[in-house]
Amino acid sequence: MIDRDAHQHRPLCVLGSTGSIGVSTLDVARHLSIPVHTLTAHTRLEALAEQARVHGVQRVVCARGEDVGRLRGLLADQPHIEVCGGAAALCEAAGDEHCPTVVTAIVGGAGLEPTLAAVRSGKRVAIANKEPLVMAGELITAEAMHYGATLLPVDSEHSAIFQCLEHHRQSDISQLLLTASGGPFRTIHNLSQVTVEQALNHPNWSMGAKITIDSATLMNKALEVIEAHHLFAIDVSRIEVVVHPQSIIHSLVAFADGSLMAQLGAPDMRTPIQYALTWPYHRSGPVACPDLLAIARLDFETPDHKRFPALELGRHCAQLGGIAPVIFNAANEVAVERFLAQDIRFVDITHGIAEAVDALSSAKYGHSLEDILAADAEARSWLTGWQPR
Amino acid sequence: MIDRDAHQHRPLCVLGSTGSIGVSTLDVARHLSIPVHTLTAHTRLEALAEQARVHGVQRVVCARGEDVGRLRGLLADQPHIEVCGGAAALCEAAGDEHCPTVVTAIVGGAGLEPTLAAVRSGKRVAIANKEPLVMAGELITAEAMHYGATLLPVDSEHSAIFQCLEHHRQSDISQLLLTASGGPFRTIHNLSQVTVEQALNHPNWSMGAKITIDSATLMNKALEVIEAHHLFAIDVSRIEVVVHPQSIIHSLVAFADGSLMAQLGAPDMRTPIQYALTWPYHRSGPVACPDLLAIARLDFETPDHKRFPALELGRHCAQLGGIAPVIFNAANEVAVERFLAQDIRFVDITHGIAEAVDALSSAKYGHSLEDILAADAEARSWLTGWQPR
Repeated sequence: MIDRDAHQHRPLCVLGSTGSIGVSTLDVARHLSIPVHTLTAHTRLEALAEQARVHGVQRVVCARGEDVGRLRGLLADQPHIEVCGGAAALCEAAGDEHCPTVVTAIVGGAGLEPTLAAVRSGKRVAIANKEPLVMAGELITAEAMHYGATLLPVDSEHSAIFQCLEHHRQSDISQLLLTASGGPFRTIHNLSQVTVEQALNHPNWSMGAKITIDSATLMNKALEVIEAHHLFAIDVSRIEVVVHPQSIIHSLVAFADGSLMAQLGAPDMRTPIQYALTWPYHRSGPVACPDLLAIARLDFETPDHKRFPALELGRHCAQLGGIAPVIFNAANEVAVERFLAQDIRFVDITHGIAEAVDALSSAKYGHSLEDILAADAEARSWLTGWQPR
Repeated sequence: MIDRDAHQHRPLCVLGSTGSIGVSTLDVARHLSIPVHTLTAHTRLEALAEQARVHGVQRVVCARGEDVGRLRGLLADQPHIEVCGGAAALCEAAGDEHCPTVVTAIVGGAGLEPTLAAVRSGKRVAIANKEPLVMAGELITAEAMHYGATLLPVDSEHSAIFQCLEHHRQSDISQLLLTASGGPFRTIHNLSQVTVEQALNHPNWSMGAKITIDSATLMNKALEVIEAHHLFAIDVSRIEVVVHPQSIIHSLVAFADGSLMAQLGAPDMRTPIQYALTWPYHRSGPVACPDLLAIARLDFETPDHKRFPALELGRHCAQLGGIAPVIFNAANEVAVERFLAQDIRFVDITHGIAEAVDALSSAKYGHSLEDILAADAEARSWLTGWQPR
């Protein structure tokens, strides 16, 4: 029987609910009457408490165990809400059987273990947190298969590809074409002096700081290529990046018969979030269709690999395989933090990552979660100590 | 069991094999090793005989019974090929159980009865001939349901919509957006003196004369709106036309959640023809994917209803229902013939149709095939005697 409102019977666990994706997820949940069971956050405890109150949740989890007391105080008027904290509590929440859908909106590699916990509970996992797939794509996809979890992409590009593909899995795919806005520096030729403020000023998308910097370096697109490789089981050599400054076409699939399927939408993350929650149905929601007549024009350009070496570096790491993508991701996370703290220049972000990959990617690590976490820690420590030339 | 090569076990009957779509269909059949059982043509008997020889067919049919002797003479060296002719033979060929797939590539309303014969035999009917749907959409879709026929659109716009929709039939559709190249006169302001030669010079598509003139008047788009209404069971008020001069996006579906799905491809009819033959799989074929980086830019404009009144007139006829679309189509067919014969001016085509619709659409006719054919004949005769002011 077809139940197009089944999403209303799938309570959500939102990992990272106070970030940009988390806030958008809760907006969609409100519009579509999706119950919210669990919310988690890292630092913004006041915002977390307020969300918990508004959405009538059953449980809140703070990432740091030491914050539990403070969070409990903020929710003293809501004694029925369970308050817990720490890494184990995060994983427990992600695996809780009361939440058939988990939205992973944690920033960076910190989302790896909670994502695995959700996958190992056989849930619908709406993946907004790409770094775990970059670090441990084989492990996550194998566990999803084993435990019967459904990985639903939230990244707008991957949601586009997912929508283009779903009927066509038996078809001959020739390429995936990921679109990229080109970021704030698409038309700026000398990147050596750009500021944090300039880098945080994305032309189309309103997002968190980490992914906005990743968009400016095109690291985000490099991570997405690796993410798409894992989500859609396609070799990175068949994943191309096309700069599309308007961010209206979110990605395309090219088939062997000369057809391209594309998904378009406003640059508003609520659309792909909603589809991950209502899949396989498109239902009425908070975002309107873009008006092609008002937009009038869509452009396409080749990425400039000279100014944005991250893209080729990511492809190189994906082809190296093993722990190279782990190093790539961990070095980026630390480099972005250092850039945001004005400790290194914008162009040093990719320099540092490239050097970290050179220095560490041949190190002996296996494929287990422990090995991945150890390589991740080593790369973080290495990049923390790295000095630009 | 999935057989992605099932098309190789479905011999074709191509109705109208010597026209532009027919020739493209045979090219696709050759590339994909699809056997060709029956070919039919109206006037080009030499071309028909040559196709029959090259494709090793079992049967050829000429539309006029009086041509059988000549066609048999042209195939005297191929005694095993059955040669027949006339309207009944066309319908018999369309319904022959040896051809599980029928491609309807006849020009105009003449395709109505053969299309119905194919539908009533419960086949896969690849519809390249839109006029029968405009004339008798309710009848054809009801009979398809009753006899278990599958209607597979070949028009590039409808193929695009079909591909965008197929997984999403349970989704909330807000609009269909049919793209239109705008034809050769998109940027020409005064249409009163344009010549036949100019009208036949389509900027993107190489097609037969009738549809090329229909593209110049935007009648083709009006017919497509009505075709889409029948194929996808969507009210015409939710079918919009967007001028897209590059003809790369072949059409889009807008969903209630703000997503648009689009199908793109080179302006080459072999792509939609092939998909109608290999559906539901995209297989490798003769046409390459368009290169978005080389194309660089896609534009969208509102149609100019003042210069191209056909679009609104078609919408009006669809909303009137009954025999209005039959009058609309028949008057157009005669008006296009008269324009091609330099008997009336380009702008008179839509004037004549509008007057025919005014004069005849309230006439008393029922919904049967006989009524439709009688209304069609009356409108043809009316427009033949019509004189522009």
